[in-house]
Amino acid sequence: MTVHNFEPMKYYKTFGSYEPVLRIKDGDTVVTKTVDNAGRDFKDDQVASGPNPLTGPFYVEGAEPGDVLAVQLDRLWPNRQIGRSSTVIAPHVLEPRYVSEFMNIEPSITAEWKLDLEKGTATLLNPKTKMGQIVLPLHPLLGCIGVAPEDGQSISSITSGQYGGNMDYNGFVSGVTMYFPVFMPGALFFVGDGHAVQADGEIAGTGIEVSFDVKFTVSLIKNKNINWPRAENREYLMTVGNACPLDQALQIATTEMVRWLKEDYDLTDRSLHILLGQCVEYDVGNVFDPAYTVACKIKKKWLQK
Amino acid sequence: MTVHNFEPMKYYKTFGSYEPVLRIKDGDTVVTKTVDNAGRDFKDDQVASGPNPLTGPFYVEGAEPGDVLAVQLDRLWPNRQIGRSSTVIAPHVLEPRYVSEFMNIEPSITAEWKLDLEKGTATLLNPKTKMGQIVLPLHPLLGCIGVAPEDGQSISSITSGQYGGNMDYNGFVSGVTMYFPVFMPGALFFVGDGHAVQADGEIAGTGIEVSFDVKFTVSLIKNKNINWPRAENREYLMTVGNACPLDQALQIATTEMVRWLKEDYDLTDRSLHILLGQCVEYDVGNVFDPAYTVACKIKKKWLQK
Amino acid sequence: MTVHNFEPMKYYKTFGSYEPVLRIKDGDTVVTKTVDNAGRDFKDDQVASGPNPLTGPFYVEGAEPGDVLAVQLDRLWPNRQIGRSSTVIAPHVLEPRYVSEFMNIEPSITAEWKLDLEKGTATLLNPKTKMGQIVLPLHPLLGCIGVAPEDGQSISSITSGQYGGNMDYNGFVSGVTMYFPVFMPGALFFVGDGHAVQADGEIAGTGIEVSFDVKFTVSLIKNKNINWPRAENREYLMTVGNACPLDQALQIATTEMVRWLKEDYDLTDRSLHILLGQCVEYDVGNVFDPAYTVACKIKKKWLQK
Amino acid sequence: MTVHNFEPMKYYKTFGSYEPVLRIKDGDTVVTKTVDNAGRDFKDDQVASGPNPLTGPFYVEGAEPGDVLAVQLDRLWPNRQIGRSSTVIAPHVLEPRYVSEFMNIEPSITAEWKLDLEKGTATLLNPKTKMGQIVLPLHPLLGCIGVAPEDGQSISSITSGQYGGNMDYNGFVSGVTMYFPVFMPGALFFVGDGHAVQADGEIAGTGIEVSFDVKFTVSLIKNKNINWPRAENREYLMTVGNACPLDQALQIATTEMVRWLKEDYDLTDRSLHILLGQCVEYDVGNVFDPAYTVACKIKKKWLQK
Repeated sequence: MTVHNFEPMKYYKTFGSYEPVLRIKDGDTVVTKTVDNAGRDFKDDQVASGPNPLTGPFYVEGAEPGDVLAVQLDRLWPNRQIGRSSTVIAPHVLEPRYVSEFMNIEPSITAEWKLDLEKGTATLLNPKTKMGQIVLPLHPLLGCIGVAPEDGQSISSITSGQYGGNMDYNGFVSGVTMYFPVFMPGALFFVGDGHAVQADGEIAGTGIEVSFDVKFTVSLIKNKNINWPRAENREYLMTVGNACPLDQALQIATTEMVRWLKEDYDLTDRSLHILLGQCVEYDVGNVFDPAYTVACKIKKKWLQK
Repeated sequence: MTVHNFEPMKYYKTFGSYEPVLRIKDGDTVVTKTVDNAGRDFKDDQVASGPNPLTGPFYVEGAEPGDVLAVQLDRLWPNRQIGRSSTVIAPHVLEPRYVSEFMNIEPSITAEWKLDLEKGTATLLNPKTKMGQIVLPLHPLLGCIGVAPEDGQSISSITSGQYGGNMDYNGFVSGVTMYFPVFMPGALFFVGDGHAVQADGEIAGTGIEVSFDVKFTVSLIKNKNINWPRAENREYLMTVGNACPLDQALQIATTEMVRWLKEDYDLTDRSLHILLGQCVEYDVGNVFDPAYTVACKIKKKWLQK
Repeated sequence: MTVHNFEPMKYYKTFGSYEPVLRIKDGDTVVTKTVDNAGRDFKDDQVASGPNPLTGPFYVEGAEPGDVLAVQLDRLWPNRQIGRSSTVIAPHVLEPRYVSEFMNIEPSITAEWKLDLEKGTATLLNPKTKMGQIVLPLHPLLGCIGVAPEDGQSISSITSGQYGGNMDYNGFVSGVTMYFPVFMPGALFFVGDGHAVQADGEIAGTGIEVSFDVKFTVSLIKNKNINWPRAENREYLMTVGNACPLDQALQIATTEMVRWLKEDYDLTDRSLHILLGQCVEYDVGNVFDPAYTVACKIKKKWLQK
Repeated sequence: MTVHNFEPMKYYKTFGSYEPVLRIKDGDTVVTKTVDNAGRDFKDDQVASGPNPLTGPFYVEGAEPGDVLAVQLDRLWPNRQIGRSSTVIAPHVLEPRYVSEFMNIEPSITAEWKLDLEKGTATLLNPKTKMGQIVLPLHPLLGCIGVAPEDGQSISSITSGQYGGNMDYNGFVSGVTMYFPVFMPGALFFVGDGHAVQADGEIAGTGIEVSFDVKFTVSLIKNKNINWPRAENREYLMTVGNACPLDQALQIATTEMVRWLKEDYDLTDRSLHILLGQCVEYDVGNVFDPAYTVACKIKKKWLQK
């Protein structure tokens, strides 16, 4: 159960089967850093080029295709006081006929937010708005988290899939344990793209983007097949589907939840259909990236016999 | 400001321009009843045929196309102790390749729930499940609520549109004020399809279906154009899009929220893009009916200057 | 086998259960006229208001729910020399990010086309284009064709469904026999919205719109259930799905074809899967109306044993 | 203008930036072979593992990001007499509610087709069907064709994107010239997955799969930006969109055609909107692979002034 302090020197822009930056063991903890979506670090220095440079890959000894990599998110927290966000929502989240009317603003302007890391707030510095200074509570999450995809693919960190990736879901915060299918030896785990705050859907294409301190602990579940990323916290089981359109993302997330309940909770088909039918919850992770992300959730308390 | 006690005698299965069952005035309150989705009333007697028989239409004096009808949901509560739900989730919310594997159950069985109207709970009576008796908190909402559609159309109460309809969204509960565009003289308001409980997405095709006591108060906003239903409660502004696929429902809801913020809150384009980009919330109303429903929400506290 | 010459006096804008304009019998032929999408007749006089005023409904004696109404399109041909089309393609058929760039034209201008009804050509009169006068071959089709929808609904002639409606498919031309499920007594058949020419997808929202002479012959197939409109000509069997998005329209059309081949051609599942897998053809009817239309086709020659 | 006879020894299963198997020059012709989707060669020997092993990459001297690679498909023809196809259509092309009913067949059976390479026919050998021996005309096309994707990605040959890939479109036959955006130095061109016959949509997930003889000629267009693959033959200009759902694939293809007509044919916005509005044609390439493919086509004769 070693704690590794790992200072990243190199950043990949794809989830792929690269030479590991660190080899770790089942049960180990890693304390590291991520740069922001544009490649700026904790000093706001440009140390990599965007989009979404990744810290990793971390090679987990003993991880083989057909296993599951569990990653406990011990602590995710911004490590500098300036965050940035887009100021324009995506045209594809508006009705096409109104795009010209409602998108009539210069897209290149970036908003700057002052992060108070003690109080846990983000305050809009500029541009100035008629609402005055918007102050939002910090809700730090990792936009990018995942393993190397199957068949030795290397896939851009702007999208996501069964291996995780740029899921941009505001449920992936400190205290959550995530589960990824292992496709390549060592799993090859990556993190990046921290968001101090991010709304449902990430409809402006960014959260409040910032560099992060990240602490996580890995464990291996041997010989267990899952198809898509899963997660849990004290209150919920969660599955995610990463696909476009939203309907397909929702289908995937729902199917993975059905499989989970059936296999691990020993529910009959009838029981789990009744339970999901009246208790399922959905979150819209993102509707911005090439693959959208929908989370399917069920409260653990409904699963106690 | 009259309070009308209206006992329904006749139920329509379409939202349409029918002879009003009652004429009411701006500011009036109506206390009435709805039957359940299958046409059973508060005594569990079959008094109409399903699906979704509607109470109404109520003609609001002075309502003209181009106005908005505001409807305050004063009280929605089940009025009998037996509720029923489907026990099978819809095949289209699963990945197509797994439909055969996970849909391997007889679809015709109905679940029965005992409703404790004092304690506010629904307890699964049958079928028996391995989880034992599931007990859920009541969260009563109206699945069907809306006005007569434009051009004299009459449209089945299984679907929804700009006029509202069968939106099956669990945010439409007591304490919410809804806003509908008026398409036909008198607005012609309908209610029906009460759910004692309903999960996100209504993926089994039903909530816990039950007859309701309904109390609502109408008011008119003259010469105000809205395109789609809106709503608000103490905490949130809400807009809904009713369309298939989910992506289009989300586009509609988002566009209607942009219009609302722009017109009524005097926000600049830049301000509202920044605000929605970091603060918007989405709910999945239903992914079961022919038109799906997505709600777009923004907390009112972000709108205070 | 009567031939009825029917001069329309009144036009509905919804497919619905209205008082029939004419009662006809199994085997009868009707010779009638349709006005264009904007309500202009063969003299280009405005005699009805748009969109898509319909000729009908024609009550077919003996038609009952659960029957099929067959309609042979004997002759569809424009009956005036001026046609009109939109000059702007719909923003929703472009990538959202390019809408502002490529939609930078005034939408209200209408194109006028001179129709040579002898030669069978449509020549662009104005606006002037750099390509000079575009001359297209006439390919006359009915955009609107269908019966009264189920449950007494009345649905706008801008959309479509199981009952047919505004399908805007360029395969519905003279020589085709169409099949509609009968939902209401008498079937209540309507026609309208003639297009002298129409491209795949109807992406500008119109064909070359013109009034038509229409001749059709009805026949009844008793006690036969079909779910969606079907059609055939000498070369093809065709089914259509009317839904949004395109994927769902394609699913419906494919399913209806599977059902047709299985029930009427006595093919085994294996045979029809092999055949459709290597021989199916798809046409994109429209991607403009609220419900899109996809046609699924199979050449009859592959079905001969 | 060299003609290279290239015998492949190694096959990649991803479109990526690998060591070139051959370096060629602008104007050169390559004569080579592809194995079938399962890795079987012209002798029906298993020489690679599926899915979709690719021949290449071919490095084109001088090709740089920001150029266009033109590839003339001189000759595509099967080089053995046995072809194979799936015998089951995909569940996701059927309405979800009917999947269980119509998918009731064992999926693992493969159909075998005898290819007569002289006569140009494919004859179903087995399984036996009630239709007897189906005989289809050969229509040889390459399912996989494309270049290395941007940012050094390597992406599975089961899907497609801006770089081309597994587009499975039956319009990519001998006589067509294709145009690809160059993302990586040398373009890195790949071919594979020959289909002797393939229906619209590739709804069974395969065409009639067979090894091919392939002859193609490359040329470079320097400093020309295109976003997505384009193609032309004597009759048509064609663009393709590779995305899911179909609606998005259609948007992409339409946008790319608008850009082409605007930039290379000097059409005004108004002219090209009128022309596309009445003359555009769409083909459904595939609705099976993770990214669907839609082709947008316009007849060249409409573009002559």
